[in-house]
Amino acid sequence: MENKVYLTRDEVPRQWYNIVADLKTPVKPPLGPDGKPIGPEQLAAVFPMNIIEQEVCQDRWIDIPEEVLEILYRWRPTPLRRATYLEQHLKTPARIYYKDESVSPAGSHKPNTAVPQAWYNKQFGIKRLTTETGAGQWGSALAFACNLVGLECKIFMVRVSFDQKPFRKTLMRIWGGNCVASPSNETQAGRAILKEFPNTPGSLGIAISEAIEQAVGDKTGQTRYSLGSVLNHVMLHQTIIGLESKKQLEKFGEKMPDIVIGCAGGGSNFAGISFPFVCDKIHGKKIDIIATEPKACPTMTRGAYHYDHGDIAGLTPLLAMYTLGHKFIPEPIHAGGLRYHGMAPLVSHVICDGLVTPRAYDQLTCFEAAETFAKTEGFVCAPETSHAIAGAIDEAVKAREEGKKKVILFNYSGHGLLDLMGYEKFLNGELKNYELPQAKLDESLDQILHFPEVK
Amino acid sequence: MENKVYLTRDEVPRQWYNIVADLKTPVKPPLGPDGKPIGPEQLAAVFPMNIIEQEVCQDRWIDIPEEVLEILYRWRPTPLRRATYLEQHLKTPARIYYKDESVSPAGSHKPNTAVPQAWYNKQFGIKRLTTETGAGQWGSALAFACNLVGLECKIFMVRVSFDQKPFRKTLMRIWGGNCVASPSNETQAGRAILKEFPNTPGSLGIAISEAIEQAVGDKTGQTRYSLGSVLNHVMLHQTIIGLESKKQLEKFGEKMPDIVIGCAGGGSNFAGISFPFVCDKIHGKKIDIIATEPKACPTMTRGAYHYDHGDIAGLTPLLAMYTLGHKFIPEPIHAGGLRYHGMAPLVSHVICDGLVTPRAYDQLTCFEAAETFAKTEGFVCAPETSHAIAGAIDEAVKAREEGKKKVILFNYSGHGLLDLMGYEKFLNGELKNYELPQAKLDESLDQILHFPEVK
Repeated sequence: MENKVYLTRDEVPRQWYNIVADLKTPVKPPLGPDGKPIGPEQLAAVFPMNIIEQEVCQDRWIDIPEEVLEILYRWRPTPLRRATYLEQHLKTPARIYYKDESVSPAGSHKPNTAVPQAWYNKQFGIKRLTTETGAGQWGSALAFACNLVGLECKIFMVRVSFDQKPFRKTLMRIWGGNCVASPSNETQAGRAILKEFPNTPGSLGIAISEAIEQAVGDKTGQTRYSLGSVLNHVMLHQTIIGLESKKQLEKFGEKMPDIVIGCAGGGSNFAGISFPFVCDKIHGKKIDIIATEPKACPTMTRGAYHYDHGDIAGLTPLLAMYTLGHKFIPEPIHAGGLRYHGMAPLVSHVICDGLVTPRAYDQLTCFEAAETFAKTEGFVCAPETSHAIAGAIDEAVKAREEGKKKVILFNYSGHGLLDLMGYEKFLNGELKNYELPQAKLDESLDQILHFPEVK
Repeated sequence: MENKVYLTRDEVPRQWYNIVADLKTPVKPPLGPDGKPIGPEQLAAVFPMNIIEQEVCQDRWIDIPEEVLEILYRWRPTPLRRATYLEQHLKTPARIYYKDESVSPAGSHKPNTAVPQAWYNKQFGIKRLTTETGAGQWGSALAFACNLVGLECKIFMVRVSFDQKPFRKTLMRIWGGNCVASPSNETQAGRAILKEFPNTPGSLGIAISEAIEQAVGDKTGQTRYSLGSVLNHVMLHQTIIGLESKKQLEKFGEKMPDIVIGCAGGGSNFAGISFPFVCDKIHGKKIDIIATEPKACPTMTRGAYHYDHGDIAGLTPLLAMYTLGHKFIPEPIHAGGLRYHGMAPLVSHVICDGLVTPRAYDQLTCFEAAETFAKTEGFVCAPETSHAIAGAIDEAVKAREEGKKKVILFNYSGHGLLDLMGYEKFLNGELKNYELPQAKLDESLDQILHFPEVK
């Protein structure tokens, strides 16, 4: 019996799926500082107009440019694997499938949007992209994409990660990216912080400020900024994951999954695997769609659905989303990609509409799930991905208890080969769980009460 | 046009290819301390008899046990990829294919033999395997295999790597392997060294001594030793690489490669990709088969074809092989897997018979080749693998100069995600080339003159 299914080049999806076209309730627009919806032109200094158009597009299907497909085709279509060995270990009647996005050169799903973003910028005449990165997953993906498209790439990497996790920085350098520690001396924002706090470990909020400042500050107009999650066009680009999965499930002889699971930090890998199935659910199919997150950063399960900034510094427009408050700093769990205070507006939207169910897991449960997976399937997952595996294991055990032959699909969003320090600490018994105290949450949410409510 | 070809489960080879059956000259047997060929029973304390039988087997085809196939099938068949983007970059009329062995959970070809070795030991009633590892590629592969088969795994890891490269050790731990720094306090050999040199960085020679001592010292008879390269049965297990490649080349519409390339340290990945094609060459096909190695450790290009020990301490039988002398310590190049003084007797044999041509590259040329590959194909290779890529690029450039549409196949033996320190140093301009001085080589070879010559 086959335990993995590929697709031929001809079977690769040639269009992205835009869930906006199928939502039953209107999309909530981003708001400016005055509380009024912002227009495309207000973003033109930050993003190229072709991407802004995609951000607000209402069409259900959007063609993937041939040149973008050509680059994606270096590693796509990615395999859909059946976790037969995990099933046997769990003694479950469920059939568990996982979409393996770890096979990209950067090791995660991130290049799925890095490549089209770089390509659209190039088409628009842009010469250089700036971005921020935390642990380096997104920065390495964008460096990879810029190298292939022919753009310069400047990455502001949070100081503490720059020093402690040197190897994703090395990946960026191999692909020609210019990665500097943030705060840096290259921007006003960076210099101001360094003057006040010379020994700061940095933060994503600072790094975003530096990247945006350099993009909008280039008077030649040849620089733009790029974001790896949260925004509508990023969700759109990631839908290739779910679209491929659908075709591959069919090849496995499955009509439709009963359960679809992805972890969600900013929301992009979750949207990628799930939105094509959310479409089926909107049109009447019965599917449980589960977004998993860490209990240390429980944006979807305990946050407010409220307008809030996407960054700590408050530079972005106000977005309608589940949020813990834009000044919330999560505890240092190893799933760095899930340490985000907000959630993509489109993912927040489908949660609010009851189409997606969020669920939170603690850190040790997730590392235990990752260890079980590594000892059965063989592969060592990213700490973020372990949250999807924890969800899949829970559902498979439930199927066993109920005696139901459920079909479970989850997104294997990345490998853990550059995150082994977290495993080492887990195996040493040095990791702990973090549950967010209610008082800390209330305090953080208080800071956003003056922003508009989502209606 | 497809740029990668997979195989279905039914197409996976079900037999290994044993080149011994096709050699025109007799295999040179290993010799004991007395200079006489050693019999199987003399190895019985070190290896289980079913593996010893395979080591001396003359049959052309050997069935792969179903249970072994079931485990290999977690990641096999591996993709054969066409390097179209590298071809375009080089403006070559050559068609370049690479067999991607980096997709295994351990990240290299090593599990191809770790799995059957663990399985045969388990069949023989063994409970525990010991081995040594340098940088950790082999140790992690054996831990992975032992976990799936149900054996304990004890790995002696060279102290300096244990401290400097902690992450392959973490992989071993995830898969349940017990990895200790060598020299350790657990063996007489280790204690003796520690007493004399308490701050020694360790060596493969010491680690081998410790692993063998623990295996033969287990009076219950339930422990054996496992080796990741050099021996005939290891070469045998790796031939699945070349056998799959043949079927995949056919699917690409290619009849036969003109050139087959692999890097060679102990020889196992090279034998894996090449021996099925060496068979074709023996039977009259015109194929250039090239084994690449570092100039810092030029075993095949400058060593002697002579009887010598496989380890520095002189614990192994005398093997007929290309060697730099068993006490040779190569300079610290980053391709740790190619820092071996000897070469597998079967690989040495086909070189001596003129079937395989060795070629040496220096370190910077190889890192440049790796960088070119990463910037065109996207993937970041292991430092060892970069020696195969350097060879492939040279041949592709030659094909361009000659205007010939050559078909080049090389083995992409592993990824470089746990070797990024080497890339960092390369990008910093901190790496240098090492050419072995003739005087040092002569001195090293002098030490083996008293061993029997190969006739």
